[in-house]
Amino acid sequence: MTGRTVRRRVLRISLPAGAAESPRAAERADLLAAEEPLGIRVGGQALTLTMRTPGDDLDLAAGFLVSEGVITEPADIAGMMICDGQRCGHAGHEGAGNIADVTLRPGLAVDPGLRRSFLTTSACGVCGKASIEELAVASPYDLAADQATVTPEVLAGLPEALRAAQRVFESTGGLHAAGLFTAAGELLAVREDVGRHNAVDKIVGWALRSGRLPLAGCVLMVSGRASFELVQKAVLAGIPVLAAVSAPSSLAADLAAQSGLTLVGFLRGATMNVYTGQDRVLAPQPAAP
Amino acid sequence: MTGRTVRRRVLRISLPAGAAESPRAAERADLLAAEEPLGIRVGGQALTLTMRTPGDDLDLAAGFLVSEGVITEPADIAGMMICDGQRCGHAGHEGAGNIADVTLRPGLAVDPGLRRSFLTTSACGVCGKASIEELAVASPYDLAADQATVTPEVLAGLPEALRAAQRVFESTGGLHAAGLFTAAGELLAVREDVGRHNAVDKIVGWALRSGRLPLAGCVLMVSGRASFELVQKAVLAGIPVLAAVSAPSSLAADLAAQSGLTLVGFLRGATMNVYTGQDRVLAPQPAAP
Repeated sequence: MTGRTVRRRVLRISLPAGAAESPRAAERADLLAAEEPLGIRVGGQALTLTMRTPGDDLDLAAGFLVSEGVITEPADIAGMMICDGQRCGHAGHEGAGNIADVTLRPGLAVDPGLRRSFLTTSACGVCGKASIEELAVASPYDLAADQATVTPEVLAGLPEALRAAQRVFESTGGLHAAGLFTAAGELLAVREDVGRHNAVDKIVGWALRSGRLPLAGCVLMVSGRASFELVQKAVLAGIPVLAAVSAPSSLAADLAAQSGLTLVGFLRGATMNVYTGQDRVLAPQPAAP
Repeated sequence: MTGRTVRRRVLRISLPAGAAESPRAAERADLLAAEEPLGIRVGGQALTLTMRTPGDDLDLAAGFLVSEGVITEPADIAGMMICDGQRCGHAGHEGAGNIADVTLRPGLAVDPGLRRSFLTTSACGVCGKASIEELAVASPYDLAADQATVTPEVLAGLPEALRAAQRVFESTGGLHAAGLFTAAGELLAVREDVGRHNAVDKIVGWALRSGRLPLAGCVLMVSGRASFELVQKAVLAGIPVLAAVSAPSSLAADLAAQSGLTLVGFLRGATMNVYTGQDRVLAPQPAAP
């Protein structure tokens, strides 16, 4: 594992307001968000490879396994390790740590279908259509039973709280973030990554490993958009409310509706859209259209 | 294939400026960017599954195969089809078209290593470290030989030109976009998708199928960040300049430097950072630091 940022020389160009003047250019140092591959192995077999920002890699591996429905509690993991690079004798490979090795508890194994699922799905073999039931991983938690509520005022404060907690973004401007909050708006954890899905997996893995799953009553706030994949991760971690700075996709809203998840999008300043699970957001009754 | 947008009822909440007042909420219709799975099959075998916005699916499949180094010219594809849903007799699966079937020309086959590469890489089996050479797909094009240059003024105009060409974004606020431009700033093609990598694959596939590869002298502009994956797609399509609205990752800059690609980031209004290949951007000599 290397650092979370990498320093690089860059040519900064500024165009002057006056068209007659020439652009100004100056070399300067710039910090980039680090991106490296992480291989996740279970029982010695490669399961997946993700391009991630180094850091919290054990959490990332654990969270990925939660999101895929493989594990649900800390005891499901018999052991985990990141290769420290010392066992590898290859020239030029010193100090690397880009493989997470997971050993599951006896009796637990990765469904062979999961390994296959990275290449294909259980979709209809002819037309390829997959219903949400066929695409989604079944969750052990019933979100509809989660009685948590959250006020619009608390939701409105989350983007700023998330941004304030993002340390690497500030230096690089280039990272996605996921923040876990209580329904009262208290920040529990924040993770940053070049991949939004990795940032969420790091949160979920941290929660699993500290015995906090399911994350009942919590709000997950993500930078950027809300995809099907992110909704699935929230549902599998038992999180009842997912809020995003930007738009959800159609399939994200469909899965949220079906799972009993409250999905909030375009959460910016004083306005927001509640796509599903509107009962959890304590708002006045809608005005007649 | 269904539409590119999906209409949905949403609860829009606005917090008033005065803390004593209650939030306002009203139901309204909202358009979401459509997201559905597309399976890509080559020679009857599942190769990958991507969550994409329906549309230009044959281009997406072709572009993906270019990006992975499988094909380089139109004649490499003996045939392509999207299932029209008519051959599938399953209840509820009418009209779906979420599988792209590709038949390669005789003598061309998918390297078995590519199918495996979605689960593992050629990285060192012990420490997991993969050099750029090991991660990257070899390109048939020598970008360093591309003599194209582009002015800062042209670059500065691309984000607005891309945004102006984005039709679905305007209605949903939720899509990534990729635009292909000449070095003079003329728009050649724009594609939108919930996945940035899909938008680029749709551009590259369109270029392949219309006999335009390699895209010498062109500039590819993407919304959001520039990742390793996007740099690789540009390199494999022979595009000498990649510009992004937001930050590149460390690995993106490394691969760009090694491939002879000009990588521009934080392209916003009158300022931009040139990370690699600075000779292609006609700028004054850097001032002394």
